[in-house]
Amino acid sequence: MATVVVDVMPKQAILDPQGQAVAGALGRLGFAGIAGVRQGKRFEVEIEGEVTEERLAELRRAAETLLANTVIEDFTVRVEGAETEV
Amino acid sequence: MATVVVDVMPKQAILDPQGQAVAGALGRLGFAGIAGVRQGKRFEVEIEGEVTEERLAELRRAAETLLANTVIEDFTVRVEGAETEV
Repeated sequence: MATVVVDVMPKQAILDPQGQAVAGALGRLGFAGIAGVRQGKRFEVEIEGEVTEERLAELRRAAETLLANTVIEDFTVRVEGAETEV
Repeated sequence: MATVVVDVMPKQAILDPQGQAVAGALGRLGFAGIAGVRQGKRFEVEIEGEVTEERLAELRRAAETLLANTVIEDFTVRVEGAETEV
């Protein structure tokens, strides 16, 4: 069993009203020095067996198909604990 | 300017119907070998100036106050690119 993390974030060019609302609320709560917030989704996918290159390619297809709307969102797939994106 | 990432995930003991729906949908789409999915939120907070221990403590308070519902969610705060949670 391994955990693969898929992070889905709004593309830089896309307005993120949710993140803007959070940034505004942080300011109103007195947290200073916040230049901006972007809000996205994090999926922790538990997979059975070993993490192989094929499994990761499959998960990238899954992320593209189901987890992210690639018109407005970017995603990254990585094995939990590993620093580098795969 | 630095980016601090706050990950907010449902606690392990808490049911995650959103994640279960995603896991079910992945199965129906033909992605096999998925043992489970948990869905949470990812915030990318752009902060002005340097990342200091005080700024991170402040961000942890912000996460506790606004970003996570600590009754049902856990959160981690880390500097983007840094492997270790702070």
